[in-house]
Amino acid sequence: MDLSFLFPKQTVSGLVKDWLKEDIPSFDYGGVIVGEDIKTAHLLGKQHGYFSGRLFVQEIFDELKCKVEWFIKDGEEIKYQDGKPHLLATVVGPVRNILIGERLSLNIISRSCGITTRGKTLNLKVRKEFPDWKGKIAGTRKTTPGFRLVEKYALLVAGLDSHRMDLSSMIMLKDNHIWSCGNITNAVKNARTVGGFTLKIEVECRSQVEAIEAIEAGADVVMLDNFKPEDHKPVSNFLKTKYPHVIIELSGGITSDTILQYITNDVDIISMGNLTQGVPHIDISLKIQKQ
Amino acid sequence: MDLSFLFPKQTVSGLVKDWLKEDIPSFDYGGVIVGEDIKTAHLLGKQHGYFSGRLFVQEIFDELKCKVEWFIKDGEEIKYQDGKPHLLATVVGPVRNILIGERLSLNIISRSCGITTRGKTLNLKVRKEFPDWKGKIAGTRKTTPGFRLVEKYALLVAGLDSHRMDLSSMIMLKDNHIWSCGNITNAVKNARTVGGFTLKIEVECRSQVEAIEAIEAGADVVMLDNFKPEDHKPVSNFLKTKYPHVIIELSGGITSDTILQYITNDVDIISMGNLTQGVPHIDISLKIQKQ
Amino acid sequence: MDLSFLFPKQTVSGLVKDWLKEDIPSFDYGGVIVGEDIKTAHLLGKQHGYFSGRLFVQEIFDELKCKVEWFIKDGEEIKYQDGKPHLLATVVGPVRNILIGERLSLNIISRSCGITTRGKTLNLKVRKEFPDWKGKIAGTRKTTPGFRLVEKYALLVAGLDSHRMDLSSMIMLKDNHIWSCGNITNAVKNARTVGGFTLKIEVECRSQVEAIEAIEAGADVVMLDNFKPEDHKPVSNFLKTKYPHVIIELSGGITSDTILQYITNDVDIISMGNLTQGVPHIDISLKIQKQ
Amino acid sequence: MDLSFLFPKQTVSGLVKDWLKEDIPSFDYGGVIVGEDIKTAHLLGKQHGYFSGRLFVQEIFDELKCKVEWFIKDGEEIKYQDGKPHLLATVVGPVRNILIGERLSLNIISRSCGITTRGKTLNLKVRKEFPDWKGKIAGTRKTTPGFRLVEKYALLVAGLDSHRMDLSSMIMLKDNHIWSCGNITNAVKNARTVGGFTLKIEVECRSQVEAIEAIEAGADVVMLDNFKPEDHKPVSNFLKTKYPHVIIELSGGITSDTILQYITNDVDIISMGNLTQGVPHIDISLKIQKQ
Amino acid sequence: MDLSFLFPKQTVSGLVKDWLKEDIPSFDYGGVIVGEDIKTAHLLGKQHGYFSGRLFVQEIFDELKCKVEWFIKDGEEIKYQDGKPHLLATVVGPVRNILIGERLSLNIISRSCGITTRGKTLNLKVRKEFPDWKGKIAGTRKTTPGFRLVEKYALLVAGLDSHRMDLSSMIMLKDNHIWSCGNITNAVKNARTVGGFTLKIEVECRSQVEAIEAIEAGADVVMLDNFKPEDHKPVSNFLKTKYPHVIIELSGGITSDTILQYITNDVDIISMGNLTQGVPHIDISLKIQKQ
Amino acid sequence: MDLSFLFPKQTVSGLVKDWLKEDIPSFDYGGVIVGEDIKTAHLLGKQHGYFSGRLFVQEIFDELKCKVEWFIKDGEEIKYQDGKPHLLATVVGPVRNILIGERLSLNIISRSCGITTRGKTLNLKVRKEFPDWKGKIAGTRKTTPGFRLVEKYALLVAGLDSHRMDLSSMIMLKDNHIWSCGNITNAVKNARTVGGFTLKIEVECRSQVEAIEAIEAGADVVMLDNFKPEDHKPVSNFLKTKYPHVIIELSGGITSDTILQYITNDVDIISMGNLTQGVPHIDISLKIQKQ
Repeated sequence: MDLSFLFPKQTVSGLVKDWLKEDIPSFDYGGVIVGEDIKTAHLLGKQHGYFSGRLFVQEIFDELKCKVEWFIKDGEEIKYQDGKPHLLATVVGPVRNILIGERLSLNIISRSCGITTRGKTLNLKVRKEFPDWKGKIAGTRKTTPGFRLVEKYALLVAGLDSHRMDLSSMIMLKDNHIWSCGNITNAVKNARTVGGFTLKIEVECRSQVEAIEAIEAGADVVMLDNFKPEDHKPVSNFLKTKYPHVIIELSGGITSDTILQYITNDVDIISMGNLTQGVPHIDISLKIQKQ
Repeated sequence: MDLSFLFPKQTVSGLVKDWLKEDIPSFDYGGVIVGEDIKTAHLLGKQHGYFSGRLFVQEIFDELKCKVEWFIKDGEEIKYQDGKPHLLATVVGPVRNILIGERLSLNIISRSCGITTRGKTLNLKVRKEFPDWKGKIAGTRKTTPGFRLVEKYALLVAGLDSHRMDLSSMIMLKDNHIWSCGNITNAVKNARTVGGFTLKIEVECRSQVEAIEAIEAGADVVMLDNFKPEDHKPVSNFLKTKYPHVIIELSGGITSDTILQYITNDVDIISMGNLTQGVPHIDISLKIQKQ
Repeated sequence: MDLSFLFPKQTVSGLVKDWLKEDIPSFDYGGVIVGEDIKTAHLLGKQHGYFSGRLFVQEIFDELKCKVEWFIKDGEEIKYQDGKPHLLATVVGPVRNILIGERLSLNIISRSCGITTRGKTLNLKVRKEFPDWKGKIAGTRKTTPGFRLVEKYALLVAGLDSHRMDLSSMIMLKDNHIWSCGNITNAVKNARTVGGFTLKIEVECRSQVEAIEAIEAGADVVMLDNFKPEDHKPVSNFLKTKYPHVIIELSGGITSDTILQYITNDVDIISMGNLTQGVPHIDISLKIQKQ
Repeated sequence: MDLSFLFPKQTVSGLVKDWLKEDIPSFDYGGVIVGEDIKTAHLLGKQHGYFSGRLFVQEIFDELKCKVEWFIKDGEEIKYQDGKPHLLATVVGPVRNILIGERLSLNIISRSCGITTRGKTLNLKVRKEFPDWKGKIAGTRKTTPGFRLVEKYALLVAGLDSHRMDLSSMIMLKDNHIWSCGNITNAVKNARTVGGFTLKIEVECRSQVEAIEAIEAGADVVMLDNFKPEDHKPVSNFLKTKYPHVIIELSGGITSDTILQYITNDVDIISMGNLTQGVPHIDISLKIQKQ
Repeated sequence: MDLSFLFPKQTVSGLVKDWLKEDIPSFDYGGVIVGEDIKTAHLLGKQHGYFSGRLFVQEIFDELKCKVEWFIKDGEEIKYQDGKPHLLATVVGPVRNILIGERLSLNIISRSCGITTRGKTLNLKVRKEFPDWKGKIAGTRKTTPGFRLVEKYALLVAGLDSHRMDLSSMIMLKDNHIWSCGNITNAVKNARTVGGFTLKIEVECRSQVEAIEAIEAGADVVMLDNFKPEDHKPVSNFLKTKYPHVIIELSGGITSDTILQYITNDVDIISMGNLTQGVPHIDISLKIQKQ
Repeated sequence: MDLSFLFPKQTVSGLVKDWLKEDIPSFDYGGVIVGEDIKTAHLLGKQHGYFSGRLFVQEIFDELKCKVEWFIKDGEEIKYQDGKPHLLATVVGPVRNILIGERLSLNIISRSCGITTRGKTLNLKVRKEFPDWKGKIAGTRKTTPGFRLVEKYALLVAGLDSHRMDLSSMIMLKDNHIWSCGNITNAVKNARTVGGFTLKIEVECRSQVEAIEAIEAGADVVMLDNFKPEDHKPVSNFLKTKYPHVIIELSGGITSDTILQYITNDVDIISMGNLTQGVPHIDISLKIQKQ
């Protein structure tokens, strides 16, 4: 599967146009100075990591009538070594257009590669330790406003679960939903009425009792919220044994350092906000070649 | 000055509407389940740092017909201590509307506070060491696409210089602009023709000779690109002495760890990409109070 | 639950503004002729049916600074009898604004009430005949472009399942998806990779064998496509007995006339395109009162 | 004349982009599963009727980089017979793009063909009975919000009059306009002041006396509102004889069943809301061919 | 009639937001410097003329939470005399908001007042000379892109005819339309087919013979194109006598200096491009009062 | 330099689409009548002047799939002589598309050529009289809302300075900014805080004392506001001698007739609102050739 097919061309094209407008609200002063000589630029990976976001760079330069030749695919390693940059792609086109697309391209992929790198690195570590674990690490909705599609995509490229996209996807019932409906059972029933058979329902639970109530009421997923490693294990085991079809998610306070302590075969999903928050960027640059 | 006045209400309102749409493209399933009981929520700082982004939270909840009472201003300290969260604000309104605004608010301010915190912390460190330095630390255009206004604003709140906003602001001449025009002198003249008297012209220079040519041609700012601390000092000193009106910027490879080595009274601006890249977020949450 | 809370105000407001623009692309010639005297108008149901769409009318007249007083709620009966219209609401405001909102309001609710009426009538008939049936009648994506939210909402008010909202919701695998992946098992696995744990996967099946393969591969829903009533029954029964957690949908060629023949306790969902296609409208008018 | 030239390409392109967005707000999960193999799909008419909407399907697949070969033109008969579908067109392109365009295409043309079929069928019936009638059957503004251009176009293809497009076109004076101005004469004069010489003015009349006042004041069209067949005939005849240049429209309560009773040579226009309301759709499908 | 009712509030609000965005694409640097003290500003007419555009200024300051008190209505005289400005309105509100709205307000009304002044002055001159003339002076589509509504409105306030709004209004047949259809008769028939009974049809004619053909084919308006004063008179007279219901428009090369030579009772409309082209602006300023 | 490179293609494309929509909000009735025969049209300059706006015409006809061959460049003379029009370009394409683009093209360039002509004519006059003057004539923000980019561009083509683009560019401090901050010194310091090192600061001054305060506080530009020719000269001379790096602008009440009286070598910029207000258009037409 080519994950970039998740994006209809119109979606990317719309985003790219909006973002270019942010960077050039009126005149492109630099463009008139450099002109339209045809130049070649090298997209260079200057740090080790895992690549993602190719389709965005492609769309930017399609829009700008430049040609891109690629030497890397999403998910592959950026092989920066001994100070020698990895040539990721070449871009050929009118120099003013290369410069229009330069900063936007880099701003996108330095962030998406950052997320893919953090995610894939963590995933590899977990898989090494727990090669038989069937579960997945997942992101959250803690994304940058307006930039969520890129960030969710970067998680998928890393081999992770992107978690629900937005409030119109899977219904998640938290304490307030439950209070409003009186109890978990009512909340799940109400959710089913509006969400119908097509949407999953997840319930945030703080105890095994709550989880059982949620499942009996029809929840598809239960999230054990802020459980310590030693606390969730008996609960997960009990639930998974009794309700094998139900998905068990752990969330809250889990970090790259502690994740290994949480993993058992009873757990399906471990979600972590910091996969999309405070993620170091990957250093990538676009150098126009002097002729 | 109240820096939030940098934003006309229409600008913030447009951004907020777009971002809400990203999070609820069709139905708000959760909203129908919680309903419209009036609730109070606490905006809690759960990590030490410096606050920014109040106007965005305010606009979100204005839009959603909730009232916000504030206990912190942009630029002030988030006084998280001994595990005790800092109550930043209370939000009162229909519970479904509080939940619509919750994630978006947190996604904005966890990032803007992160940037303000990194920036202000660095600035305080520099000022402590060099209390007489007249120069400023500045950001770059290395921002998240679509989210630049928030990030530039967070820098200003931190007491830093936001650097140029976009390609329609100050004209920056890099190697390609110079090659296209033959030499620095021509590039600056061409820039002046289109930029007129209202825009500043900056030239990226790799030597004292280039800097002199740029200044003599009329550049307002020269950027000494990728100079080592010991290399820039004689150049900066020569230039500042000879051309006191010209602004001298250092850029390239400067980090929080190395910045102190670069500072002299001849330098006006030190710009750093990592003020807006890979910045750790600040942990803030919005808790609806059980009644 | 108040189903109208499915709509954040911003969503409705955006739709209403676009639709008003369609009806008044430049000048409102009529508006200048009637002026701004305050008038009262009666929203009258002139045909028996079930009401829906109140929030749209409310938003239109909020936008137009008119007050609406309601005498009916979504889902209630329009009690038209013996030629006597049912007074659904009164609208008070400047007469030019009432006229701006009149046609748009009626164009929305005459359609949404039509769908709710067809859906609820069918549902009542089915429930009367099969009072113990746990399943639900559902719509499809066969909606009017740009008007889907209204139509899906009208189905929910009718007590039906709105089925998946769009291609970004539940993943439905049809013959082409299966061919592309070689077989059902691969297609479901690929779907799970991208859809993650938050999206349901449905597989369109033409035989019991296909359905079993789909379920074993992890499908959440199987759709028995174009089965005759006598053909689906043994299959549904087999599947439901063996895989009680899997949802069974019937679709294809089922009409109001034939639906009763399909219902069994093994069937969860019966979906029908004509719930949103070719639906008779409900006759509603808005009459400004002469003073 | 090729009626599809009524649409500048930009108009259709804008609509299509908005509608695609409604169906894929974030990821296209199905698209990544089917991939980009080149496939051929058949657009099949599965019900007798008259075709319209070709330009929309063309634009959708232009946008999606697929090629369409057509075997039918707008206005021609869909020759479904003996269960054998009519091959309307073939679409060739990447399978994920065919699937992106499939539902939208069908949702448009199943509706536009429905309207064209109802309209043309009625028109043929009327023409057969009254071969010498110079008048025309017309639609109204009772269209689906956001979808009016398609519906008005479908009427034109059917050989009908589309009636005024919106409130910025022909000025129609109803009771409220007249009350506000004191009498018909003033209302028409005011309308002429703002509408100028380029817009027609129509007055809704409930009697011959009102019609005469309207015409003497300068109305271009009089609408005899809710007249019974036997009542309108002497009035129409009187008006047409005395004022041959004035256009006479009948409206209100006229249906396919009763229209023949209304037709005389004195009547220019008979308008009916149900030409665009509650219209049965035409069954059309797009089948990707197995290779 | 209050002509400003031609604008639904949503229309003006949308325009104002777009225009404010043009003037403040990112930060409002001035706003943060002046702050939000409440100030009073005087809108001053500094040149004699006729006022129009009040609703735009009102909407701008409504949007900006300022109050406006008006001392002039659209169409009234700006009584600038002996160097003493005419106080048109006062604006009270936060000073940063007054400054945001200042330039946009002035840019709109200096242009709209300019057009109203030129139009009304010409109209008064013509009426003085030909007090019994029933005809009207009209504008054209020669307006500023994106600003047409303001300019057409300014013509109406001047007491002129705004002529057709756009290509979707009255159908005008020029030489190319006629060539494409073979002759005038066919062109008019085709126009009637698509335009229906609601749109007027105008034909540009270069001779009496052409005008007769147009009228006989059903044209509502004939335009005598580029006729000299002495040439049009016998033609106009012939046409008006024979076809009193047809509207006769003169266009082409008519200026303020020559218009009087063209006027006869047979002419209904004289249209002139320079009513909206190259029109001197009216000097208006907004002065914030020092306290 | 090719000044049209100031516009990224996306910017022009967006403007053109919006403007076409203004002229064809729904159907293009004329288009269906003329059809799609391929025709050639001549763009004719019918008045002497200087040309600008080629890129807009090009974009319009690119969008409309027509080919344009150009015989003039921006800035060149329109050589209309002895009633013989200057052939500026030929346009070849489907006739309905030529007609869609005709009026919009002419509405743009008749205005942009008007501004370029007024500006260049004035500039030539000034240069002839003062061949050694290093300063420049500049525009203002007194542009038509929504059309500013075209008007600013037309000034640049004329060889003038476009002055600041908007409120997000150079910071201009007027009386209100100064009052709010207490004095000029504070106002400049505040401006520097928010504008940083990348934006210039200009102060409107009414005396030499004010100008000195502004400069000492760090202003980059001082504007001598409404000075008479004889009054500004000693002030300009004093300031320029003492502060050679500061830019001196004259503004207020300067016209084409009086500008020569103001020019001295001490003045850098003379700005005039009427370069973009009340500017006579240039007569240009597009004639489709009869075959």
